This record gives sequence, structure tokens and C-alpha cells, in this order.
Amino acid sequence: MITEIPEKKFKLPASGSVRLEAFSDGVFAIAITLLVLEIKVPHHEELVKYGGLAKYLLHLWPEYISYFLSVIFIGIYWVNHHWLFSFVKKTNHVFNLMNVIFLMCISFLPFVTAILGDFVLDEAFMQPAITFYCIGFLLPVIPVTLIVLYATHRHRLVDPRLSAPFIKRQLTKLYTSLTCSTLSIIVSFYSPYIAFSIVLAMFILFLLPPETPVYGE
Amino acid sequence: MITEIPEKKFKLPASGSVRLEAFSDGVFAIAITLLVLEIKVPHHEELVKYGGLAKYLLHLWPEYISYFLSVIFIGIYWVNHHWLFSFVKKTNHVFNLMNVIFLMCISFLPFVTAILGDFVLDEAFMQPAITFYCIGFLLPVIPVTLIVLYATHRHRLVDPRLSAPFIKRQLTKLYTSLTCSTLSIIVSFYSPYIAFSIVLAMFILFLLPPETPVYGE
Amino acid sequence: MITEIPEKKFKLPASGSVRLEAFSDGVFAIAITLLVLEIKVPHHEELVKYGGLAKYLLHLWPEYISYFLSVIFIGIYWVNHHWLFSFVKKTNHVFNLMNVIFLMCISFLPFVTAILGDFVLDEAFMQPAITFYCIGFLLPVIPVTLIVLYATHRHRLVDPRLSAPFIKRQLTKLYTSLTCSTLSIIVSFYSPYIAFSIVLAMFILFLLPPETPVYGE
Amino acid sequence: MITEIPEKKFKLPASGSVRLEAFSDGVFAIAITLLVLEIKVPHHEELVKYGGLAKYLLHLWPEYISYFLSVIFIGIYWVNHHWLFSFVKKTNHVFNLMNVIFLMCISFLPFVTAILGDFVLDEAFMQPAITFYCIGFLLPVIPVTLIVLYATHRHRLVDPRLSAPFIKRQLTKLYTSLTCSTLSIIVSFYSPYIAFSIVLAMFILFLLPPETPVYGE
Repeated sequence: MITEIPEKKFKLPASGSVRLEAFSDGVFAIAITLLVLEIKVPHHEELVKYGGLAKYLLHLWPEYISYFLSVIFIGIYWVNHHWLFSFVKKTNHVFNLMNVIFLMCISFLPFVTAILGDFVLDEAFMQPAITFYCIGFLLPVIPVTLIVLYATHRHRLVDPRLSAPFIKRQLTKLYTSLTCSTLSIIVSFYSPYIAFSIVLAMFILFLLPPETPVYGE
Repeated sequence: MITEIPEKKFKLPASGSVRLEAFSDGVFAIAITLLVLEIKVPHHEELVKYGGLAKYLLHLWPEYISYFLSVIFIGIYWVNHHWLFSFVKKTNHVFNLMNVIFLMCISFLPFVTAILGDFVLDEAFMQPAITFYCIGFLLPVIPVTLIVLYATHRHRLVDPRLSAPFIKRQLTKLYTSLTCSTLSIIVSFYSPYIAFSIVLAMFILFLLPPETPVYGE
Repeated sequence: MITEIPEKKFKLPASGSVRLEAFSDGVFAIAITLLVLEIKVPHHEELVKYGGLAKYLLHLWPEYISYFLSVIFIGIYWVNHHWLFSFVKKTNHVFNLMNVIFLMCISFLPFVTAILGDFVLDEAFMQPAITFYCIGFLLPVIPVTLIVLYATHRHRLVDPRLSAPFIKRQLTKLYTSLTCSTLSIIVSFYSPYIAFSIVLAMFILFLLPPETPVYGE
Repeated sequence: MITEIPEKKFKLPASGSVRLEAFSDGVFAIAITLLVLEIKVPHHEELVKYGGLAKYLLHLWPEYISYFLSVIFIGIYWVNHHWLFSFVKKTNHVFNLMNVIFLMCISFLPFVTAILGDFVLDEAFMQPAITFYCIGFLLPVIPVTLIVLYATHRHRLVDPRLSAPFIKRQLTKLYTSLTCSTLSIIVSFYSPYIAFSIVLAMFILFLLPPETPVYGE
């Protein structure tokens, strides 16, 4: 059974940003779902050590919190990625590769989350666990900033009517995120609590809806 | 190779509910498929302990049942999510985030299922395993109720012609599910068998097809 | 940013078979990809036992073969699922649930494959490993047969012009598959080699392209 | 609720290359995301052995590099697969099966990556680990070459206006990749360093954008 693919006009967008978005949605969906694999199902012997299943499940609370934070974190990136494509009008090879780098940082998050959930309550390992989480928090901001810079530079890949002040505001937000994340990494060596508070504060700011794209001068 | 994305008119829906649905479908598909990873492949030593591979595979029966129940459970949510989008006409930032919370509860199910499958036959751990399963059963109902409340409040995101009595009937069903799930958690501390029966009864009710949306007064 | 979803006419198909196909494609894609997780990365101590990494990787050959067979097997089902939707014109609640059951059988295959790959070379466990594989081979055929029966009964969900003899030929093929798979399970208790040969023969037949749908009397 | 699927004209492409691309995107997305599962979360005892969490996380550097290389590698294949479908106009049964074989090689990469990351620093196992990586690098090139040969032979599945010299250039590139990958495997037995350099060189060449399809004589 040979299946004809219809006229080129319909085909081109499909192989343009539609596939890029579908591929990215796939990575987001999997990264969110894989997070739960990091919460370990106990063996019978472990349960005895913890004093029963109920106690074991309760003592997992830091893992539930880091699971929750990471799901919301990936969800926010999904919302913003989707928002980005409301004004990006073209894709090219460099943009595609940058997007792959960004997705790599997103799919690294289940590992970062597992480290945080497992060791944040452990006096000896809390500091490196939080430093690592701050690094994991910074990582996706770098390619996102590069992607927005690359796409908006001389309106390379965005709608030509997209307002310059709108672009500037987005870049300012991204530079602020980069600065705060870098700061949180440095601070984490001295005070993990303050570092984690910075991350949480950024987190809450990220929850705010992204600005609606502005067109025209 | 630069790929032009065509006229905005086609683009907008793609970045609207189409991506939300694609992303959600991805999470449903992965959650269903990950469930099988919780059924462990035995080591040679374990097989000797269980008296052979055939006996080992047969003794896994509670895992097969909890696998089956969880697949159907996620499948029902997929059907209902898909039905929800037959009358939701717009999405916004809050709706997107609520949907992420809902998907988080769905992707938590493989963990809940693994706990049930591993410990339901163990006298000592049966009660907490069933309580945990009842909690896992309740969890997605909460964001679903909030999503429907949010979307239908003053027809915020739904078709303006959607009938008010239809909306009311859906909310009544959701409140009933919330009440029964909460009840099953409480009951599970005293009688795990009755709690599990409540869950199974709700399960069978959930299998019924959702009501076709009614438009007009 | 509120995103309007356009006219209902475009919306309905999207929530019809398009989402069903997308969801199913997700499950197929994940099931194929999860198969590799069943091939274990060795610990250093194991390597010493096997006499080095090269020897370890070579001795994994039954796992590579069962990986290969299962990928092709899932791939064939994907091709046939896709072919099914070239003549299925509607979906309904029962059809959706049947499809979930079918996908459950598909996502069970990584477990079946792991059991075969791990134990087929082990004298003591070869017979149950092959019986289990034959069961895993039979499992998806059951819901597929029910799906085709349900969809084609009085042309319930298929194109009304679909030729009756074409439908009959498809059902005959499915009954033959059911019979052969059941036979292979029974035979596997007496002669695993003959059972595996039946499965391989069916496998090669499945590789043939499905019949192009015939319309009109 | 019965959902009608609209006119056949819209349906056919959806079951043509659109589903093939969606399915492939799913596999690419999952393969990229699964890679992180191969980076193991440590147990408390292991941390003591390594001298703390920070040291453990630092000593994982070869795993981070092999993670990075594999993500980019899969990303490049995704970009090229997407490019391939800008001139492939039809699909058929053989093409679908070849694509499944190709996806199998892609989803094998997380295993190859894990082996490289775990053993490349181990004197005793470095040579087989690199040989295995070279094999993993060669594997997807074989089905890609066959797919392009099959689709372009007498313009079987590609746009009939696709330029013959363009096709020839693509095949020459593929034959070169095949030769270099095979060479790297042979060389890896004598000098893993040179073999790895060949792979890295090919890698950098693969990063260049694929040629825009040329139409007309």
C-alpha cells in the first residue's frame, strides 16, 4: 500500500517547526514521567529496617517534594517553549541543534532531582546536593538565552513585526535568570539554605505567565 | 535550509490546545508503558529460591493484576482528558499549569502500582499498600475537579453555548468521586478489603462512557 | 495569553482518531525504546567473572536477538495499527478502551523479551521462557481480533463501502494467528524448539505487507 | 460519543508519513531522554568509598561526556531524518520496516553510551568499550544508507523532480560514512585513541547542515 503524501505546501510546515515542537513535547513528556522512576520501590529487607511500609513511604517526603518541584519546573519550561513558538516563525539547522542542547539539559533534570531527593536530608551531603541542584537549575537557562538571542538577532527567525522593546524585555529577564542562577551556585558553597531560597524565589517568578508577544513598533 | 512556518492562522491552534493535548498524550503513553518496568526480571538466584522460572512467573500474579488495573485506570483518564477537550475551547497559563499538576499525578501511578503489586499479598504490609493505592486513586481527581471548575466557571474556557445543567452534572460526578476516594482512604485503615472494593466499584463506574456534551439551554 | 481554538470542524477530528493514533504511536515508540533497558550494563565484578568486557558483550547475543525480534514484532504491529486506521472511519468509547487493552499487551512485551533473552540459553529455564514468549506473542492478537470484529460488525466504525470479502479475509487471517499462537503455547510444553519455530514462521508471515483495503461490492 | 473522522483526503496523509514521522520523533525523544537513566544515582555506601557526594559527582565526568556526545548524536540523526522527509514523498511497507530497523539502532545507543561511559577510563576495558562505541556509531548508518538507496532508486518514493546529482552526492556521503565507521572499528583493536578520533571527526562533519534538496535537472 503506497501512501501519497499530498502537495508540498502542507508538507513543509510539518517538517518545519511542527516536528520540532512534537519532538520537544516528547522530551518534556518523558522527562516528567521518568522522574517517578527515581523514587525507588523498597525491598522487603529495607522495609524491616525502616519499621514498615507506612514509615518507609512517609520518610520518602523529600523525594516527593523534589519530584513535585521538578515536575513544575519542567512544566514551566514546556509552557515557555510553547510560548516561544508563538513568535518564532522559521527554524534552521543551528536553531534545531540549539534546541537539542536545550532538551539535553531538560532530560538531565531527573538525575539532578534524584540526587537532591536522596541526599538533601543527609547532613554530610546536603551542600553538594544543593549545589548540584542549582547547577541543574542554571543549565537550561543557558541554551534558552542563546536560542532567544539567535532567533531574535535582526529578527532572524521571528515575525518581522515583533516589537523590539518586547524582545529586549525577554532578554533582560533571561540575563537576570542567568545571573541569579549563577549566584545561587556560588552562594550554595557557603549557605545551602540561602541558595535554595534563591532557587525557590526564581521558581515562583517563573510561575507567572510569560508576556504576550507585542507586534508593531 | 530555512523552513518557513505558514500563515499565523494555522499556527495559533498548533501552539494552543493541540500541543497541550500532544504533551498530555505523551505523558499518558509513557506512564502506561513505564508500568511494565516495575515488574522485575528475576536473577538466577531468585529463581532457585522460588523453585523455577514457571513458578516465579506464576507467583507474580498480583503484579499482573495491579499492572492491568493501572493500565485501564490511566486509559480511562486518557479517554476522559480527550473528552474534556471536546468542549474546552481555549487554554491559558493557569489552565496549562493545572494540567501539568494533573499529569504529575498520572505519572506518579507507576510508583503506586509497584507498591501495591509488591506488598498487597504481604500480611504485614497490606494495609499501608492499599491505603497508598487509595491515595494514588484520589490524587488525579483533585486537579481534574479544579480544572473543570476553572474552565467552566462563567464559561471561562469552554464553548459559550455549553449547557449549564451538563456542567453541573459533571461537577456532581467529580465531587462524588472525590468523596468516595477520600472515604476509601479512611476506610483502608480499618478494613483494607472494603477500601479496595470501593476503589474497584468506582473503577467500574469510570469505565462507563462520559456524557456527550450538551449545547444550548 | 489566551489561545483560541478555531472552529469546531477542525477540532473534532483532532479529538477523534488523531489523538488515538498519536497516543498509540507514543506507546509503540516507548515500548520499542524501553526494550534496550532490559539489556543490563555490567558491574566491574561481573566483568571479571565473564573474563572481560568483550566476552561479556559477546555472550549477550541471545539478548541482542530477542531485542531484534521484539523491535521487529512491535514494528509490525505499528505498521498494522496504522493500516487499520486507513479504513476505520469513527471511534467510540468501547473502541478506545479496546485499543488501551491492545496497547497494554504491546507494552508488556519488553518484560516478555527480557525473560526470553535472560533464560533461553539456560537448560533448566528454557521451556518456561519459551512458553512465556509464546503467551506474549498471543496476547496482542486477542484484542486486535476483538477490535477488528467490533469495528467491522455491520460496518459499525469502518467506511460503509468497505468490501465484505475484504473484511472476511482479515478475520480469517486473525483467527489463523489466534489458532497458531495458541498451538505454539501448547506445543511449547513438549517441544520448545517446535513452538519457537511456529512463532518464527508466523513472524515471517507477519512481515508481508497487509492487504490494501478494497472498497465497493 | 461517536467521533466522525472527516473526508478521506485529510485522512490519507495522516496515516502516511505523518504517523511515520510522529512515531520516529517519539523514538528519538525517548532515546535522548533514556540516556540519563544510565547515569546511576549512588547509594550511601558508594559515596563513602568515593569520598563524598561532590567527588562522586565530579568523577562521573566521562559519563557526562558520553551523555553529551550521545544526545548530540541522536539529535543529528533527528535533524537528518526530518531533512530526509523534505524530499521523500511516499512511504510503503518496505520503507516502514526499514525505518523500524533504523529506529532500533537509534534506541540501542543508550546501552552503547552506558558501556562507554562506565568503562572508557578503565585500562583493562577501554579497548572493547571503544570498539563497541564504534560499532554503535556504524549501526544506524547501515539502515540509513539502505533507506536512501531504496527511496531514491528510480525515484521510487521521492519527488520525481529531485535532481539526480543531488541524490548521488547524498549516497557518496553515506558510503563515506560507512567506510569511515567500519575503518574506526578495525582501527579500534589496535589503537582505541585513533579510532575515537575518527569517530569524533565524523561527528563534527555530521554537525554541518545537510544539503538543501535540489529539484529539476
